[in-house]
Amino acid sequence: MSVGWFRRRFLPGEPLPAPRPPGPRASPVPYQRPRFLRGSCSSPGAAEASRRPDSRPVRSPARGRALPWNAGYAEIINAEKSEFNEDQAACGKLCIRRCEFGAEEEWLTLCPEEFLTGHYWALFDGHGGPAAAILAANTLHSCLRRQLEAVVEGLVATRPPMHLSGRCICPSDPQFVEEKGIKAEDLVIGALESAFQECDEVIGRELEASGQVGGCTALVAVSLQGKLYVANAGDSRAILVRRDEIRPLSSEFTPETERQRIQQLAFVYPELLAGEFTRLEFPRRLKGDDLGQKVLFRDHHMRGWSYKRVDKSDLKYPLIHGQGRQARLLGTLAVSRGLGDHQLRVLDTNIQLKPFLLSVPQVTVLDVDQLELQEDDVVVMATDGLWDVLSNEQVAWLVRSFLPGNQEDPHRFLKLAQMLIHSTQGKEDGLTGEGQVSYDDVSVFVIPLHSQGQDSNGP
Amino acid sequence: MSVGWFRRRFLPGEPLPAPRPPGPRASPVPYQRPRFLRGSCSSPGAAEASRRPDSRPVRSPARGRALPWNAGYAEIINAEKSEFNEDQAACGKLCIRRCEFGAEEEWLTLCPEEFLTGHYWALFDGHGGPAAAILAANTLHSCLRRQLEAVVEGLVATRPPMHLSGRCICPSDPQFVEEKGIKAEDLVIGALESAFQECDEVIGRELEASGQVGGCTALVAVSLQGKLYVANAGDSRAILVRRDEIRPLSSEFTPETERQRIQQLAFVYPELLAGEFTRLEFPRRLKGDDLGQKVLFRDHHMRGWSYKRVDKSDLKYPLIHGQGRQARLLGTLAVSRGLGDHQLRVLDTNIQLKPFLLSVPQVTVLDVDQLELQEDDVVVMATDGLWDVLSNEQVAWLVRSFLPGNQEDPHRFLKLAQMLIHSTQGKEDGLTGEGQVSYDDVSVFVIPLHSQGQDSNGP
Repeated sequence: MSVGWFRRRFLPGEPLPAPRPPGPRASPVPYQRPRFLRGSCSSPGAAEASRRPDSRPVRSPARGRALPWNAGYAEIINAEKSEFNEDQAACGKLCIRRCEFGAEEEWLTLCPEEFLTGHYWALFDGHGGPAAAILAANTLHSCLRRQLEAVVEGLVATRPPMHLSGRCICPSDPQFVEEKGIKAEDLVIGALESAFQECDEVIGRELEASGQVGGCTALVAVSLQGKLYVANAGDSRAILVRRDEIRPLSSEFTPETERQRIQQLAFVYPELLAGEFTRLEFPRRLKGDDLGQKVLFRDHHMRGWSYKRVDKSDLKYPLIHGQGRQARLLGTLAVSRGLGDHQLRVLDTNIQLKPFLLSVPQVTVLDVDQLELQEDDVVVMATDGLWDVLSNEQVAWLVRSFLPGNQEDPHRFLKLAQMLIHSTQGKEDGLTGEGQVSYDDVSVFVIPLHSQGQDSNGP
Repeated sequence: MSVGWFRRRFLPGEPLPAPRPPGPRASPVPYQRPRFLRGSCSSPGAAEASRRPDSRPVRSPARGRALPWNAGYAEIINAEKSEFNEDQAACGKLCIRRCEFGAEEEWLTLCPEEFLTGHYWALFDGHGGPAAAILAANTLHSCLRRQLEAVVEGLVATRPPMHLSGRCICPSDPQFVEEKGIKAEDLVIGALESAFQECDEVIGRELEASGQVGGCTALVAVSLQGKLYVANAGDSRAILVRRDEIRPLSSEFTPETERQRIQQLAFVYPELLAGEFTRLEFPRRLKGDDLGQKVLFRDHHMRGWSYKRVDKSDLKYPLIHGQGRQARLLGTLAVSRGLGDHQLRVLDTNIQLKPFLLSVPQVTVLDVDQLELQEDDVVVMATDGLWDVLSNEQVAWLVRSFLPGNQEDPHRFLKLAQMLIHSTQGKEDGLTGEGQVSYDDVSVFVIPLHSQGQDSNGP
């Protein structure tokens, strides 16, 4: 069951609220802006339940608020397959205050109004329990706000100053900054990168303190100053769908896509494998019969393949094993970036996974102000449960089939999110007609980019 | 002065010929296939001379031979600015023999004929003297041939077998290979990657043995089985120019483009900087007045920028300093990949550059058989001396302006290479009309891709 609830704003220095147990949560906690909706999700494994999801739409509190580019509203809907919610989500207004120069980290308390306003959408796909995803949904926006507030003077300048104070110590400082091509958007990218790292540290501390475990992927979209920033650490995905264009706004980070980075680390620090794994990649796990044969392999420095003669150490379990969606890092984890997992070890060993994981996201910038937006231009953000069964092209086809005929429907983005979820549940909907089934949690944001219809579309 | 000469084929196990002194070399040494032309080049710094180059065309011995896709011939021409040749080049036929299974590295001596034929073009831009570039021009093709011969059975199979012997130990081996998507071209990529590494090791040994120093970039194109492989380690560049398309076939590897990799290494091994350098990037070198200020910076994990408060360690010389073409690694080197430089140290210190350099190339594959080739489709390969003053678009414009009107000229590709060189020497040629001047060595290959005119174009 899916119920929206408002939660109080959390500041990084404050103790985190204890992760809540999954399930319905019908008592909103009204508080100051920004308000965050958390759409509850369900855990994987409930294959039977996944065929008859009882999805209920949850409307975002961001609806009706003017986004920086005056888009209408965002919707989130979840698959609701079981009582545990490993998918978590958050969205809301991002209110960035200004700090007073020279006040040494003290906020200008007489002027508490926000200085810059953005919007934030985030999806977290948990594993090993919902704890990390819940913490991330509770924390990351606060980390981001803090990081953005720390550089806000640079954000609003024509070009970020060499010195945050604006003082010009060297006359040609502006020229140095210009030559490096540093723009305000680079500060937002830096803030997102730092916020993910900070959030990862918070999650590590909190999980340890509360004796919980787990990790999660994180996909975040932030609209600020006419641009949409998409930060991704994990295997969720965001795409822009327009009438004539499908543009990926993120890449997936899995043991397969980050093979060379992971193998390189094991090459530099072989002790991380404790003699239990082989760093090399082979088409399949080798066995005794392969000894002495020349078999296909690749190492950290290779994008191509070559042959090597198999020796005994090649028979160990591979650092990265399996293919495509089945690829696992150290036989354990299907993603190579994300938050949490500080305690995660290979079963029955002391081998840690965290050294191989990155919490830093890759950030893509979409210059929304430069797009000639059409009414039906949307960004679709979803966890891997959607993309496992629907390609970018299929999602775009569903978007383009649905939206133009429903322009008067105030709930059309909500219904589109619902339809996307339903398309993963093996329903013959007459659109994809293939009846594909996702056995994973599925969470979807549909974010309309166009300002038209913002008022008329509201219920 | 530019004179072509043939050299004897060198096998990796043999002692390398001593690097030859630069200058004219008019005594060809006829030998067996493959024959390699080395176009002699000149050293940087001769600014005055560079304005009046005495370029002489050198026709490649590859001319007239049927390339795998039946293209015509390749030409190379060099700027000839001084008596030292830091740019070196090689091209020729690549004859790959087949080894007998079970013969344990012994070649099938009764069948010395080549099994597979390709073509090879390479540019090496030396620094710290011509020694490494000369060694690379003498060695790399032999390393590559050896690496390709080691996997040739996989190259000619429909799909590379799991075991080089072709024996199927596990019945589903072909399926594993197919699921990994391993194709013959991956073996060529792997062979190029291994050949660059092997060549780097040979250069290291030879330079040490002969008491010489230096390094070089390497840009290699190999045509094999209907595909063109472009392997690049350094800041040379190859582009495909067609009537309606300009396609980059390589990326440049400089301290600027590989900043994060280099900073990451210094983060993991801070001792590599010996306390003399700071890993962090700032818009300019910091000085005492900056102490205590919050200035723009970025670290290894950041693609964006942020601010940090300057402390004393930030005043050290930066690991990567300068902008664009002026960016230097440890204040010394303008490239981050290449061959050689095993002995290179920061001036007056014991700090080595080699740990930060990669000899592995990035390989791009152009499926020539899939292109609907036009008569004037060419690949232009050139050292940075060309690209410093001409953009891809300007080079394409020169190609498209020149070739269509000269289709009957048997020397048109040669003349195009000459024109490209001349366009970097500040001549008002009525084409670019901007009179740009390159003070660096310039070497250019123009490789026609189309089979038409192969015979008629020969002199």
